Formats: sequence, structure tokens, C-alpha cells
Amino acid sequence: MEQELKNLIDGISPIDSDIFQKAKEHTAQLVMPPRALGRLHDISERICAIQRTLRPDVSKKQVIVFAGDHGIVEEGVSAFPQVVTLEMVRCFIKGGAGISVISRFVGAKVMVVDMGIIPDFIPENQEEKAIFKEKKVARGTKNFAKGPAMTRNEAVQSILNGFNIAKEAISNGINIIATGDMGIGNTTPSSAIGCVYTGESAEVMVGPGTGIDQEGIKKKIAAVKKGLDVNKPDPNDPIEVLSKVGGFEIGGIAGCILACAYHKIPVMIDGFISTAGALIAKALCPSSVEYMFAGHKSEEPGHIAMLKYLGLTPLLDLGMRLGEGTGGALAMNIVDAACHVFNEVMTFDQAGVHEKEN
Amino acid sequence: MEQELKNLIDGISPIDSDIFQKAKEHTAQLVMPPRALGRLHDISERICAIQRTLRPDVSKKQVIVFAGDHGIVEEGVSAFPQVVTLEMVRCFIKGGAGISVISRFVGAKVMVVDMGIIPDFIPENQEEKAIFKEKKVARGTKNFAKGPAMTRNEAVQSILNGFNIAKEAISNGINIIATGDMGIGNTTPSSAIGCVYTGESAEVMVGPGTGIDQEGIKKKIAAVKKGLDVNKPDPNDPIEVLSKVGGFEIGGIAGCILACAYHKIPVMIDGFISTAGALIAKALCPSSVEYMFAGHKSEEPGHIAMLKYLGLTPLLDLGMRLGEGTGGALAMNIVDAACHVFNEVMTFDQAGVHEKEN
Repeated sequence: MEQELKNLIDGISPIDSDIFQKAKEHTAQLVMPPRALGRLHDISERICAIQRTLRPDVSKKQVIVFAGDHGIVEEGVSAFPQVVTLEMVRCFIKGGAGISVISRFVGAKVMVVDMGIIPDFIPENQEEKAIFKEKKVARGTKNFAKGPAMTRNEAVQSILNGFNIAKEAISNGINIIATGDMGIGNTTPSSAIGCVYTGESAEVMVGPGTGIDQEGIKKKIAAVKKGLDVNKPDPNDPIEVLSKVGGFEIGGIAGCILACAYHKIPVMIDGFISTAGALIAKALCPSSVEYMFAGHKSEEPGHIAMLKYLGLTPLLDLGMRLGEGTGGALAMNIVDAACHVFNEVMTFDQAGVHEKEN
Repeated sequence: MEQELKNLIDGISPIDSDIFQKAKEHTAQLVMPPRALGRLHDISERICAIQRTLRPDVSKKQVIVFAGDHGIVEEGVSAFPQVVTLEMVRCFIKGGAGISVISRFVGAKVMVVDMGIIPDFIPENQEEKAIFKEKKVARGTKNFAKGPAMTRNEAVQSILNGFNIAKEAISNGINIIATGDMGIGNTTPSSAIGCVYTGESAEVMVGPGTGIDQEGIKKKIAAVKKGLDVNKPDPNDPIEVLSKVGGFEIGGIAGCILACAYHKIPVMIDGFISTAGALIAKALCPSSVEYMFAGHKSEEPGHIAMLKYLGLTPLLDLGMRLGEGTGGALAMNIVDAACHVFNEVMTFDQAGVHEKEN
């Protein structure tokens, strides 16, 4: 199974530097001062290089929300009871959550994947079956403050499950995917993964998540420290990192990112948990980062260190800290606007406008 | 005529604090951790208080691009020849400019207003007539480095023209307006207005605009300094400020903002030039600021000082510096998303999700 993952990773190539250059030449002709739309140009040019085209297109948008439960909640790290993971999945499927609304607004489909929720969600009709995918690796991770969160095989399986779910969406014509997450307690494994890769301390990496108080933050820092101490994950072995201090939905996100890179479409990373998945993806395949866009800067304080490590600048900074994929979904609109600018703004010649004098 | 303007300003009231409070209570019930979507909540609640409703709606979007020419270009302050003002207006109307594309993308109508272009644009068909409005106050301003840019009457006229154009759009059902500008040389009067209100020096306020070099920036700083020195505009008399160092499109933008406040709809301020218009609007009517949203942080270095003076935090920061209304148009999408979240996300009760434990 690990060989299967290795083969997929070997199939990932860097983005196309020739097309990147040609895209820059196109931007230079647009009827505006040089690069006057700033990052919109950077975005559209990179999409060109990702999609190997000078007609970048992200009109077929998919949000994939990976959900899982976490043994670490035993340590008192979350403000919400564990049953909320399933309850929120139900809410996503009913279309009433933040991610449901923002996805509808940006014209993105939503898919919700059970990567390892403790109870089962049973879809009741065709509509629910179209949104919900069951890819359960196990019924929640183990408490990583006491030992590995999952087996090495389970870690590989979670990445492959994420890969395959994304592959299926892409084969249906999707040309951009935003990653999302749901899992009570999942800022704690994300913090641990953040510590492993950025080298920051648990004190820097841990934040209030869904809104724990100072006492809760102390417990959370202690849990992360204990988890790192007990498990001693090796950063050079990202599967080990995921298995020792990760989560099933984090593995799913990593796999989803790798699938986007493999299939040459852009992937929009949401906030703290999705970025933890991106850290695993980068460690498995450094060039996967070229396919990533950072949707937004989360309010979770450790997020910025993770983004810095990845070398990504977030598109939005709106004080959001919900997860679910909300920041990524909203940012897909910016990326789409950038592609429209690239494709539709006239050149100086076409518009009959005088160019700069000096 | 000045009395007419005064009467309109007297008709502007602050936003509704009761509805603001009720909107906050609604947000607190949404199925997510408290205020987890950050500024999206702040935005939707303010729209409620602006529109006097708990069903905020910004689906009917209008971008109004105010265009004018500037005598100050004699001082060598712009990288583009003056004829480009008209050429770009033509491009807006053909639908090929940055603002055309971004407006289409966000579902906003575009209107282009000749507030004082030197040559005339003659619309050729019904379609062009629907987009283009002729409200010419004069054929370009005078060189304000040598004396007032316009008469006091012309300043009042430009504000009233902007007011009336926006009023017409609102009477057609528009529920959010983004301001835009076109005018070769117009970062120079905007810088001068910025100096008057923020108290910053010309050195801080002046930037490269459409892309002048260091030599050009020196000329531009000198022009602003000369203009302020020759005209000595009194900040307590915003009509005087506009007449002495302003522009017709800047007056139009100020009037448009006042009309939005008068008619209780939100107004999205674009970048540097639009924000200069907002400074005039604020000086005429301080509570008009409550109706403003700052679309984005322009790359023009003086912009942030203006925004700080207004007390507005920009929604986007994407390195844009095109003007035309592009930053405002793109940001209307964020505001629209915020309203959808407010209206469509379920409450904890509706979703059947457990609330926070502590």
C-alpha cells in the first residue's frame, strides 16, 4: 500500500515554467499599467502553469470536507462535545452550515467524507448520497498523548482515501478543489504537526480552536507536548508524523492535495487543519506546494508559521477561524476573478489605448 | 445650489443601532463557534443597520466609474498621455477593461459617468447609452499648482451630479454601489486632498500612480506642495478643498457616497482616488462613514493613512493599484457572501447541534 502511494507521488511533476513565462507575457499586454492588478496576475499565471494552458479555468469548483474524530479529546482540548463532529456533518449535508452557504455562494459543489468519525452517518436519499462519501479508516484516532494516533497502515490508507476521493471529483470535470475539515479536537493534532515541521513550540502553535479558555489552552499545550514527547515523530518520515500525532481527516486532506498536483489542477488550502494536511503533503512531495493556494489567514495564531514554512501568502485575512473549508471556498472566488481578468481583459492593441510614455 | 447640497446632507441619518444590536443577537445563534467567521459577521450586521432590515441584501450591485481630466498633468505627473482618459472610458463601455471584467464576474452593472473629460464620448447605440452618462461639469480641471482646480460652483455641481447619478441607480433597485474612477493624473489631486485631511506630508502621500519613475514622483510631490501652498485649502470647508485641489470625478464620488448614505444603502469605496472622495464626503457629513466599506488596500502608499483617518479597515489586500473601481467591485463579493451567511446559516436549534460546553 505504501508502494502505491509512492508511485502516485512519483507521478507528480512541477508546474510548467514555459507556460508560466508565456502567461506573464500575456499579462504585460493587458490594457492597464504594468501588473496593476497585483496578485490577481500572479494567481492567474500560476493557474496557467498548473493547468498547462493559456485559458485558465476554475469555474468547476469542488469543496471536499474531510471529517474524523480524535482520541485526544480525552485530554479536555475542545470546547465542544465529540458528538458535534457527526452533528455538523449532518448540517453540511442539510446545507445549513457556514461551508454550505459559502460554497453555494461561490458556485462550488460540496462533498463530505467520513474519514474516521466514531458513529456512522447513514444517507437517507439520493441527494444525500451524492454529497456524502464513506471512507472511514477507523472509528476515531487514539489519544496521541498516550501513544500513536493510528497505525502506519491507517495513515497511508487515509492519504490514499483522500487521493481517490479527489481523483473521482477531478474525473467528473472539477478544475479546482478547496479542502475542508470537520473534527472536534482537530486543532490539537494540527498543532502537533505544525510543531514538527515549523520547529515552533507548542506554546506558539496552540490557540483557542473553537473557543477554549486559558485553562483549556494549558491542557492543549500539555497534550501536544506529551504527544510529541511520547511519540517522537520523525519529520523526515511524514507518514510516521501523520500516524503518530495526526488525524484521519488530515491524512485525507494531504491525499487530496497530492491528487490535485498529480492531476494538474489548483488546490485551495483552507485554514489551520487544512494547512497541517498541506505540511504532510509537502513533506511527501515538495513540488505539491506549487499547486497550492492559501485561502486565508486563520485567527488561530500558529497558522502564519505554517504558511511561512510552506512559502504561501494567504489570499484573505478576514479574522475567520471556522474551518470546514470556509476560507478556502471564499478565496476560490478571488482565484476565479483572476482567471476572468486573464482571459477577458483586452490588450492595449485590442482596446486602441495609448501605452505608457516612459 | 450649495443650499440644495446642504439640505441633502441634513437628510442623512446615522445607521440604526437597534437593528445593529438585533443583528448581533442573530449572529450569536448561528451554528458555529461564537463569531467564527470574523469580519463576515461585522459586515452583515452593519449592512442590516444600514438597510434597516434583518434580511440584508446586496444582490443588486452597481459600479459607477466617474471620469474626468486634470489640468495638473501639465506638471508631468503621469506616465500616460491625457487622451487615455477618454480611451479607457471607451474600453469600459466596450466591456474590455479590468473593471468591466471584474464587474461581470461579481454580477455588478457598470455605469460610466463623464464628470469632466476634455473630449466628448458619443455613445453609438442603446447599449452604450445605457452604460454611459454625460454629466460634464467642465472640460477638465485647471492646473491646481497655479490656482484653483475649479470654481466653488463647479465643486458643488460635481457633488450634486454624483449624488443624482447614484440616486437614479438606487431608484432602479440597486442595493449596493461601488465607486470607481478614471482620470489621467488623478492620483495627484487625491494626494493633495489626502494631505489636507490626514495631515501627512506630500512625501508620504504621493506614490507612483500608474507607474511614474523617481523623477516623476519628485515632480508630483512638487506639484502637490505648490498646489497646497498656492491655494491654502481650509479643511473645515470641504467644498473649498475640492474646488482648490480636487477633480470633477472626485466630487462625483463624494456625491455618490452621500447619496448612498441618504438612501440607506452600503457604498463600497475602491482605492486611492475613491478614498479621496470619501474624505470629502466625511468632511461634509461625518455619519456618511457609517455607510462606507473600504474595498481594498491600494499599493499607493498614502492610501493607508487615508483609511486610518476614516477609521476603515480594507477588506482585501491583493497588491492592486488599478483604480477604475476594481478593488471595490471585487470586495462586493465578500460583502455579498457575508449577507448570505447571515441569512442562510442555520441556528444551533435548527441544525440540532450541541452548543459549546463551557
